[in-house]
Amino acid sequence: MNLINVGLCGLGTVGGGTFDVLQRNADIISQRAGKQIRITHVAARDLPSDLDLSSVKVSSDVMEVARDPNVQVLVELIGGYQVAYELVMEAIRHGKHVVTANKALIAVHGNEIFAAAKEQGVIVAFEASVAGGIPVIKALREGLTANEVQWLAGIINGTGNFILTEMRDNQSPFEAVLAQAQALGYAEADPTFDVEGIDAAHKLTILASIAFSIPLQFKKVYTEGITKITAEDVRYAQELGYEIKHLGIARRTVEGVEMRVHPTLVPKSKLLADVDGVLNAVMVQGDAVGPTLYNGPGAGREPTASAVIADLVDVARQAGTGYRLPPLGVEQLNERITVLPMSEVVSGYYLRILVDDRVGVMASVADVMRENNINIEAIIQKEPNPDQKQVTLVLLIQEVKEKQMDAALEQLQQLPEILDAITRIRVEGLGS
Amino acid sequence: MNLINVGLCGLGTVGGGTFDVLQRNADIISQRAGKQIRITHVAARDLPSDLDLSSVKVSSDVMEVARDPNVQVLVELIGGYQVAYELVMEAIRHGKHVVTANKALIAVHGNEIFAAAKEQGVIVAFEASVAGGIPVIKALREGLTANEVQWLAGIINGTGNFILTEMRDNQSPFEAVLAQAQALGYAEADPTFDVEGIDAAHKLTILASIAFSIPLQFKKVYTEGITKITAEDVRYAQELGYEIKHLGIARRTVEGVEMRVHPTLVPKSKLLADVDGVLNAVMVQGDAVGPTLYNGPGAGREPTASAVIADLVDVARQAGTGYRLPPLGVEQLNERITVLPMSEVVSGYYLRILVDDRVGVMASVADVMRENNINIEAIIQKEPNPDQKQVTLVLLIQEVKEKQMDAALEQLQQLPEILDAITRIRVEGLGS
Repeated sequence: MNLINVGLCGLGTVGGGTFDVLQRNADIISQRAGKQIRITHVAARDLPSDLDLSSVKVSSDVMEVARDPNVQVLVELIGGYQVAYELVMEAIRHGKHVVTANKALIAVHGNEIFAAAKEQGVIVAFEASVAGGIPVIKALREGLTANEVQWLAGIINGTGNFILTEMRDNQSPFEAVLAQAQALGYAEADPTFDVEGIDAAHKLTILASIAFSIPLQFKKVYTEGITKITAEDVRYAQELGYEIKHLGIARRTVEGVEMRVHPTLVPKSKLLADVDGVLNAVMVQGDAVGPTLYNGPGAGREPTASAVIADLVDVARQAGTGYRLPPLGVEQLNERITVLPMSEVVSGYYLRILVDDRVGVMASVADVMRENNINIEAIIQKEPNPDQKQVTLVLLIQEVKEKQMDAALEQLQQLPEILDAITRIRVEGLGS
Repeated sequence: MNLINVGLCGLGTVGGGTFDVLQRNADIISQRAGKQIRITHVAARDLPSDLDLSSVKVSSDVMEVARDPNVQVLVELIGGYQVAYELVMEAIRHGKHVVTANKALIAVHGNEIFAAAKEQGVIVAFEASVAGGIPVIKALREGLTANEVQWLAGIINGTGNFILTEMRDNQSPFEAVLAQAQALGYAEADPTFDVEGIDAAHKLTILASIAFSIPLQFKKVYTEGITKITAEDVRYAQELGYEIKHLGIARRTVEGVEMRVHPTLVPKSKLLADVDGVLNAVMVQGDAVGPTLYNGPGAGREPTASAVIADLVDVARQAGTGYRLPPLGVEQLNERITVLPMSEVVSGYYLRILVDDRVGVMASVADVMRENNINIEAIIQKEPNPDQKQVTLVLLIQEVKEKQMDAALEQLQQLPEILDAITRIRVEGLGS
């Protein structure tokens, strides 16, 4: 049987998982690949003690793998931007195929990397960069090719989804659940990338590029995290028939493409609303197929390794044939499609407003909405506690352009009856 | 741009949809395929009046398409076994690639068809044969290649799922909902294939083959339909925290492979339990990735066309390149894995037993269970109406081999207190 030699850079969680699974399932993997996939060279700053590295070359400098003439595929699992970028470019220059799980790398440097790979005639595969073990890149790029993708919406950060799920189930505040997630190893010591939506924005960039055949444009993603969501919001959302999910949304409209990451009220009737805990899910709406949904573990040692190895199998199956699938699905990306600023996006809204409990407050709020041509769909106003002079209004607003909503919010915020900053969370029907 | 010439056999629902979508999305499809996919020849018994066939060759005999030297890919959408089989074999003999949506054809004649295709070096693609527009064959064959698949479970017949959903939501009996499904066009005039599980068994055959690298063995699938499910069972299942779904299940055990289609109690906590109406979903448990789920429309004009065209794009991308993906994912299928008879399958059970309302009935039932080493997990016994002398017992039985359960049921059925045939429905935890 033919061999394919793999150089593995990074032996952390995912690197170790890749090493293990390749060993454990060696037989079925090589049957499927039609070749024996064999790790011949590894490089990592720290060598884990639980891996048997006796039969492979070991380097401390990852660049040595990129330059190893014996390596045919370099697997980049070191993460981060700069070194990973240099490593991947060096591997491509040396004619190696590349498999990576690095969403930041692809979202930020992908256009350049893919151009270099095309020049060299090598494959760059990155299934593991989005939604962990769920083969959603393959689904979009190869399974839904008949469709004009109208929109996609994904729970693509497991940490964020875990936090929101726990906030709902235990009525806990954000900070407490974050601490718990950190204790469980679901959140990093510095949780910024997860809770501020940056990780999700990286992934959304990649999904949107494939869905709409546009260049990777990470900087144009509107990004809002979950740090301001309160247990109160989660409870009100429930009461209104919604779950709060942190979604990455990409939508094609006549004016252009929306790319946005933010907390979102999702109707409970949607399957996406039932995706709890650290799981990920991506829903794709195609004009021919309608809605399809892909669900599973979005991170973790072996789920991510599963996607890395699937890419290795693809490389093994394809390398040396004349078959060449462009990384984003088309040879020529459409550079002329505008990414819309958030002000042009149309969405529904949930507003939570703390007001003085006096006659006519609701009328003032309603007046502002009417002036701005905004329709109120539902209102919750609770009886205030006898000792309180404040009351919370919760409004569901029908779909309207964000800039209209912004104008109304600015006006509302001027009203003397409104006591605090208004909380605004977007609402998406997801086809309902 | 290169061209690829397609001959389309069958212009019914899916054929018409394929024709329409190929036309409507011609630009994006050809960008993705890297070639212009062009229908040059169609054949059908009845020509629909709503398609503009002015620029294509039209035949009444589908065999003419198989022999048309100008056609490079034949799309078989005529359905059925015999003619479809002859058509596809003739096309392969003439060196044409084949795309088909015909699950019966692949499940029953697939081994032979794939052997002929290998001989001729042509592609046979069949994504549309399972779960309509959901790219689940691609996910299994290409997206999860790192994994030893432990089991998969799917709602793979939309008609059956629609009927069960309506029975639950409206507390209606099977016959009434079937009539409604027929009126809506969800069920055929002769609903046998759907409600008796044959259609699901065809699809399960295909999924199991890919998951476990075994030959297609339709005849070995245990198949049980939904015709005996009552509204009462659906209600009791709900009460116990389950939904009744008609599942196709394939499982790898140390003794062999299970392939079975039957009504199943699924815990409400599982996403699969939330898949309602005509939608399909397949859950796959891999040893590395864990559980992933694929959901979407399992049938219909354009969803099925979406999968047919995805296959056409794959053929266009791959034809002539030297890249050859074996149809079931591996070149050499494992002929030696046993398909287990149902008697050897381990499962949980739901039993509904109509008994005489007298002292000691429950003890007699419990005795039989104990004698057969069977554990009862939960019991529902309702107060009988004052004017009734009969009472319904509902039992949940912990996992046990089917032959043990059979033995216990036979004994139970002998008890004089038991007044009617016992209803038995299998229960699957799906990893919980």
